[in-house]
Amino acid sequence: MFKKVLVANRGEIAVRIIRTLREMGIQSVAIYSTADADSLHVKLADEAVAVGGPRSQDSYLNMNNILSAALLTGAQAIHPGYGFLSENAMFAEMVEAVGIKWIGPRPEILSLMGNKANAREAMRKAGVPVIPGSAGFVENVEEVRTVANDVGYPVLLKAAAGGGGKGMRFVYRDEELADKFADAQHEAQAAFGDHRMYVEKVMTQVRHIEMQVMRDQEGHAIYFPERNCSLQRHNQKLIEESPAVGVTTDMRAELGAIALKAIDAIDYENTGTIEFLEDQQGHFYFMEMNTRIQVEHPVTEMVTGLNLIRMQITVAAGKPLALTQAEVPLIGHAMEVRVNAEQPAKNFMPSTGTINFVFMPTGGPGVRIDSGVYAGDKIQPYYDAMIAKVLVHARTRSAALAKMRRLLDELEIDGVETNAAFQRELLDDVQVIAGNFDTQYVEKVYLPKWQAKVNGQDKEVD
Amino acid sequence: MFKKVLVANRGEIAVRIIRTLREMGIQSVAIYSTADADSLHVKLADEAVAVGGPRSQDSYLNMNNILSAALLTGAQAIHPGYGFLSENAMFAEMVEAVGIKWIGPRPEILSLMGNKANAREAMRKAGVPVIPGSAGFVENVEEVRTVANDVGYPVLLKAAAGGGGKGMRFVYRDEELADKFADAQHEAQAAFGDHRMYVEKVMTQVRHIEMQVMRDQEGHAIYFPERNCSLQRHNQKLIEESPAVGVTTDMRAELGAIALKAIDAIDYENTGTIEFLEDQQGHFYFMEMNTRIQVEHPVTEMVTGLNLIRMQITVAAGKPLALTQAEVPLIGHAMEVRVNAEQPAKNFMPSTGTINFVFMPTGGPGVRIDSGVYAGDKIQPYYDAMIAKVLVHARTRSAALAKMRRLLDELEIDGVETNAAFQRELLDDVQVIAGNFDTQYVEKVYLPKWQAKVNGQDKEVD
Repeated sequence: MFKKVLVANRGEIAVRIIRTLREMGIQSVAIYSTADADSLHVKLADEAVAVGGPRSQDSYLNMNNILSAALLTGAQAIHPGYGFLSENAMFAEMVEAVGIKWIGPRPEILSLMGNKANAREAMRKAGVPVIPGSAGFVENVEEVRTVANDVGYPVLLKAAAGGGGKGMRFVYRDEELADKFADAQHEAQAAFGDHRMYVEKVMTQVRHIEMQVMRDQEGHAIYFPERNCSLQRHNQKLIEESPAVGVTTDMRAELGAIALKAIDAIDYENTGTIEFLEDQQGHFYFMEMNTRIQVEHPVTEMVTGLNLIRMQITVAAGKPLALTQAEVPLIGHAMEVRVNAEQPAKNFMPSTGTINFVFMPTGGPGVRIDSGVYAGDKIQPYYDAMIAKVLVHARTRSAALAKMRRLLDELEIDGVETNAAFQRELLDDVQVIAGNFDTQYVEKVYLPKWQAKVNGQDKEVD
Repeated sequence: MFKKVLVANRGEIAVRIIRTLREMGIQSVAIYSTADADSLHVKLADEAVAVGGPRSQDSYLNMNNILSAALLTGAQAIHPGYGFLSENAMFAEMVEAVGIKWIGPRPEILSLMGNKANAREAMRKAGVPVIPGSAGFVENVEEVRTVANDVGYPVLLKAAAGGGGKGMRFVYRDEELADKFADAQHEAQAAFGDHRMYVEKVMTQVRHIEMQVMRDQEGHAIYFPERNCSLQRHNQKLIEESPAVGVTTDMRAELGAIALKAIDAIDYENTGTIEFLEDQQGHFYFMEMNTRIQVEHPVTEMVTGLNLIRMQITVAAGKPLALTQAEVPLIGHAMEVRVNAEQPAKNFMPSTGTINFVFMPTGGPGVRIDSGVYAGDKIQPYYDAMIAKVLVHARTRSAALAKMRRLLDELEIDGVETNAAFQRELLDDVQVIAGNFDTQYVEKVYLPKWQAKVNGQDKEVD
C-alpha cells in the first residue's frame, strides 16, 4: 500500500480523501493556493504545500507546481478528486512519467473519453446504446444534413473536444444548419483549438441516470446501483438520489451489464461513471463517461455501505476488488442536496465572505454532511460555489425526503448566503415528491414559477 | 399515529427524539428547566414548556409539572428517553391514568424490573440463567450464609430496590458477614425506604454484554445484535461496540432466544435491554434489565440500519413490528465513544461553562455524532456530563477503531474541558485494540497506569 498520497484538490473532496487516507494509515499531502492557506483540507493533512496564487490556473491547475509538490514530498500517488485536473490526460501522463501512481484510469483512457465523439464511438463499438446521431465526426454541412434527415430535427451540434456548452448549437430546421455549423466550428476552434464536430438527436423528456463502476487492475469489475441526477439547473446537478424511481431490478441489472461491458472493452481501471439519458419508454442512451470520482458518490456509499474513495486507493495500489457483484447491496434510499454559496433570488450569483456561524444538523441515523468549511472560514470568489453536501439515508424515498427537509430546516450557515432555502422549497414540490421530473423540469417548469413567486413577494414588500 | 408527543427529557436524547418526531410528521413538545431555556432541544421542538427550576428534582423529575405540560399541550404520548423518569413506574402510571400513552413498557413491568431481586426471580423463572445466588430475598444472616457457602465467597449483598451502589456490600469471609449485612440493610432502608436484600456470587473477569429487544403490542418480538459495554469507569460506560468480539453467530442466536423468551414471559411491550455478564467460558448470566431506550442504542442502529426511536413510537402507537428476526441485519462493526464535560486529570470532576467553538468532524461514510450542544451553548452543573456521542461504522472492527481515532483527533469543543483526549488515548491501548478486556479493565489496569503517566508529566512540567 502507498505510504504517502498527494491530494490535488481543495474543499470537501480534498477533506474527504485526506480523512480516508488518515483512516488507512497513509500520510496525506494537501496542496493549496495562497487564498486557501487556512482551509480545512490544509489543517487536516499531514503536510501541505502551497502551489500558487488564488486563481485556479495558478494553483489547482498548475501542473508543474503540483507535480513538484508531489516529488518534493515523496508522494507515491496522486488523488485528483473531481474537477480541476482530474480528467486531464496530459497531467496524468506527466504524473506517471515520473513514477507516481495516478489514482484513476490510464492517461489514454482520459484522453479517449475526453473527446466526446471518440468516447461515443468507443461506447457504440462496445455495444452501448448511444444517442442517435453521427458515427464519429462530421466534416461538412452535407454530412450533418444526412444525419439530421436520418434522425429528425432538432439536432445538436457538439464540439468533440467540448464541455461547458462551448461549440454547441441546437439546430431546429435545415435552413439554419449551414450558419450554425460554421458558428459552432469557429467557437470550438477558439475554445479548444479543435474544430471537430459531431451530431446528436435532441432528446426531450429524458432523465439523467448514471451508473458508477469500479474495475481493478486484474479486470475484475463491479457496478453500483444507479443514481438519478435529473434535478439540474444550468447543467449543474442540484439533487441526486439512488435508486432511481422507476428503475426496476431487471433494468438495473441490464444497465449494469452494459456498463461493465463498456469498461471491459476499454480495459478501464479504477472508478468511473457512465451517464445515460433515459427516455419515457425506459430506454437508455450513453451520454458521456466521467473518468473520476463524482460529487454525488456518497449517495451510492449510503445505499451500499461501501467506501468508494478507499476502494479507489486500494485498486490504484494494485489490490484486487474485495467483493463480487452479488455482494454489492442496495439498501433503502439515499439523497444528496448540494448547498452552494450563491443567491438564488439574484439569478444564483455566487456569494462570498466569512462564515461566522455554522450549525450542521448531524446526529441521528442516516445523516451525513460532507463539507470543507468551518465557523470562521472564508468563501473565496475563485472556486466552485459548493460548500456542503447534505445527505440522508432512510428505508424509503419518502422517509429520506422527510429527513432531508428536517436537515435543511435545521442547517445554519451564517455570513454567506446559500441556496439551502431554495433547495428546501424544491423538496416540497409535488413532482419532486412524486419522483416525476426530467432534466428540464427545474429550468422549464419549476424555476419560472419560483421566480414569479419571489418577484411577487418582492413587490409586496415594496 | 400520534399527532403530538411530549419528550420528557433534555440533551442529546431529547434532540434525537424530537428530530425523529419531526421526520414522522408528529408535533413535538419539549420540556425544560429554567437553566435550559436556550438549549437545542427547546429550539428544535414545535412547542416547549418550562417545568421548573434548574435542579432535576424541580424540573425533569417533577412529575406533576411534566404531566400538566402534557395535558396543557394536548400531547397524546410521552417519550421519557433515558434517565430521569424513564423507569419510574409511578410516573408511567400517572401518565396512563390520564389517558396519555407511555412510550415504554407497562407500569407494572417498570415496577417488576425496578426491584432487582424480583427481576432476578422473574428471569430465573423464565429460564434465563442468573448469577448464582439467593432465590428471592434473604431475610437474615443465616440465609445469606447458606447461599454464600453454596456459591462460594466472595458474595455481593445487594439492596432489592437498589441502584447506584447504595446498600451494596462485598463479603469476602464468613466473619464479616453479620456486620456487613446489618450495614447494608440499614443503608438500603435509608436510601430507598426498603431494607430487603438479595445475594449474588461475585463474578470476576467478566464482560458486560447486552441484548436489546423490541416487542409490539401483539407480542411479535425481535432482538438486535449484542453490544459489548465492558469498558467502564465508576459503573459508567465509556465505549460501547457491536458486535462483541468473541460472540459467535450461534452464541448470538442463543442469547437472542433467551432474551425473547424472557420478554415473552412478562408480556413486555416496546424496547428494553437485558444486561448479561459473560464469563471466560462464554456463559451468560442475567444482571438486570433496562426498561427504556439506552444511551448506546445508535451502535445498534449503525450495524442494523434501523431507527430504534422510530420503532419505539410506532410500537407504542399499536402498530405491528414491520420486520421479522431474519430481517434484522448485522453489517460491519460500530462503536460509540461518550464525550463528557469532565476533567480526567482531576479525577473526572465535571466541568461547566460556555462552549465557544465546536467542530464536529461529520462527513464521510460511517460517521455519526449525536449531541445536544452548539457553539454558544452553556454546560450546566445540574445534569449529566455527557455532551456528545461520537459513533463510527465500518466493515471491520479495526477500520472502525481507525475511524474513531481520526474523529477524536479532529473533534474540537472549546470552552469546556472534556474527556475526548482521554478516550482517544484509550483507543491506542493494546488490550482495547485486541478486544481483550473485562468490566474491571479500565479501573484496575488502565487507569492506574494512565494516572501514573499523567502525574509523571505534571512533575516534569514542575
